[in-house]
Amino acid sequence: MIETPYLLFLGDAPDQLAAKVAQGIKDWRPENAVGQFRMEGCKADMGLTDMTLAEAKAAGAKTLVIGVANRGGIISQAWKKILVTALEEGFDLASGLHNLLRDEPDLVAVAEATGRKLHDVRIPSVKYPIANGIKRRGKRCLAVGTDCSVGKMYTALSMDAEMRERGMKSTFRATGQTGILITGDGVPLDAVIADFMAGSIEWLTPDNDDDHWDLIEGQGSLFHVSYSGVTMALVHGGQPDALIVCHEPTREHMRGLPGYQLPSLEAVRDMATTLARVANPAAEVVGYSINTQHMAEDEARAYLADIETRLGLPATDPFRFGAGKLVDALMTMS
Amino acid sequence: MIETPYLLFLGDAPDQLAAKVAQGIKDWRPENAVGQFRMEGCKADMGLTDMTLAEAKAAGAKTLVIGVANRGGIISQAWKKILVTALEEGFDLASGLHNLLRDEPDLVAVAEATGRKLHDVRIPSVKYPIANGIKRRGKRCLAVGTDCSVGKMYTALSMDAEMRERGMKSTFRATGQTGILITGDGVPLDAVIADFMAGSIEWLTPDNDDDHWDLIEGQGSLFHVSYSGVTMALVHGGQPDALIVCHEPTREHMRGLPGYQLPSLEAVRDMATTLARVANPAAEVVGYSINTQHMAEDEARAYLADIETRLGLPATDPFRFGAGKLVDALMTMS
Repeated sequence: MIETPYLLFLGDAPDQLAAKVAQGIKDWRPENAVGQFRMEGCKADMGLTDMTLAEAKAAGAKTLVIGVANRGGIISQAWKKILVTALEEGFDLASGLHNLLRDEPDLVAVAEATGRKLHDVRIPSVKYPIANGIKRRGKRCLAVGTDCSVGKMYTALSMDAEMRERGMKSTFRATGQTGILITGDGVPLDAVIADFMAGSIEWLTPDNDDDHWDLIEGQGSLFHVSYSGVTMALVHGGQPDALIVCHEPTREHMRGLPGYQLPSLEAVRDMATTLARVANPAAEVVGYSINTQHMAEDEARAYLADIETRLGLPATDPFRFGAGKLVDALMTMS
Repeated sequence: MIETPYLLFLGDAPDQLAAKVAQGIKDWRPENAVGQFRMEGCKADMGLTDMTLAEAKAAGAKTLVIGVANRGGIISQAWKKILVTALEEGFDLASGLHNLLRDEPDLVAVAEATGRKLHDVRIPSVKYPIANGIKRRGKRCLAVGTDCSVGKMYTALSMDAEMRERGMKSTFRATGQTGILITGDGVPLDAVIADFMAGSIEWLTPDNDDDHWDLIEGQGSLFHVSYSGVTMALVHGGQPDALIVCHEPTREHMRGLPGYQLPSLEAVRDMATTLARVANPAAEVVGYSINTQHMAEDEARAYLADIETRLGLPATDPFRFGAGKLVDALMTMS
């Protein structure tokens, strides 16, 4: 659990895209960010107040979050100076970089001396149990994809936001590093030991109020041969009541697998439903979330209408047209 | 890779069952065991020559394999004395115990001083790649189960033995600790990091002769919610051409999951086939391996005959009636 609120470290980001993590925090948990810290030459801007470490501390910030991926994913000497000072001034540090904070002896030494924490969100910090399959109270929704990187995190976050707005009880449950930094908590599922994958998701989505929804961030795809085991653990550990099938229609092959075609929406629907019912006999697909960023608006609307006709369930692009339809579908299940 | 042949350490085993690992080596790779080492009070006996460390060394043994699980899975002081002497006399050590050899400072110190190796087969020793899904040459057969512990390792080992006897090219590919100790090599899949599971199985079953069969040891079950992600990685990383469905008919619920019924053979056949075809469109179930140890012989024969009629494929108990039918089925695919 990372202490909030954050000061977002944008470093010397070469462009806005490099600050994807900071952008996610700003978009989805603005209340978690008191300001931004930019070095000279930084080309990213979250539109937050620029603060010195001292100003951020005075404004209540507890953790400096590295909101940027630099070239090579390494922690440069220029960054180091600021990170060391932040520790000395009482901040914890949090990072999703491949170059772990804990692998930098100077950061470790200063963190120990000052009693501050180094959060490397790529690495599990919990000893997860083996899954026991016992039915938990409360409701759960899982985003499953035809492929990797088709908008599963965005879908879950936007549904969570819409549900909060409607006064429903919901919690976004992060299973990847960006999601964990956004919310301050979660399971870095791709780094969990095989035997404990499903158990980590049970741990992440415990008993809750009968009318509470966990919106579980999906990972991989049941049809992506590199990562399907991770997806399977989500389907069985998450015990979802509702499944949202996510898709990006213009992709020509599975991400990173040139020889592999994407499965049809029907194939994902049928496979995910059958597998999910092993853990939760009530599980069903309730809607489709389509990433239409590479389509013109009329083309996108026609595509969504066609899915609704063909598959008989609501379909939307939550980024473009809102997540309302998907939340409506959950409401009929509560 | 563990150096063979072995001296099998039976320690102070309280009974024969405690020496399951040694029994597996004796049954399946007798050529890997030059003898057995028993302490005073040992109640297990593999029927091998009892040897001192010096005698085993003279007979060519390279590695002392801990072939027994003691109470609590720990390495006792009584064992320690022998293990230290073995290192000093030039043996490597290999173990599948929870209590790792590498966590014992005295063993580590002596191993370093003598230049010997400590093999903890529960822990991966290789940096596995992420699966790339590229089709590999050679043929592969994977045992999939209705549940955990229904005889998947036994099925693969007995098919491998039958194929060698027939002069076919085959390799048993171990994915669990017992299998790894039996053959000296393999992937401890349940301990692999999630993202690398399927890649570790690709690594384990590389390109091979067109008429060579890998017999891949299965793990878990697609229908066991605690471990299904591990099974999925085998189905997609293994690219099996042939699937053998394994089952134990008297089990009343899924192992460790009292609320979960076993799936039907048909459900496992259909699910495994559909998923396997993502990685290998030619994949098919070719037979059933039934563990009939809790059935009388006539009952077992009737059960197998019923499956053959119902499902139209060969069914056998390889322990009781041999693996011939299953190998016949593979031969029709070569």
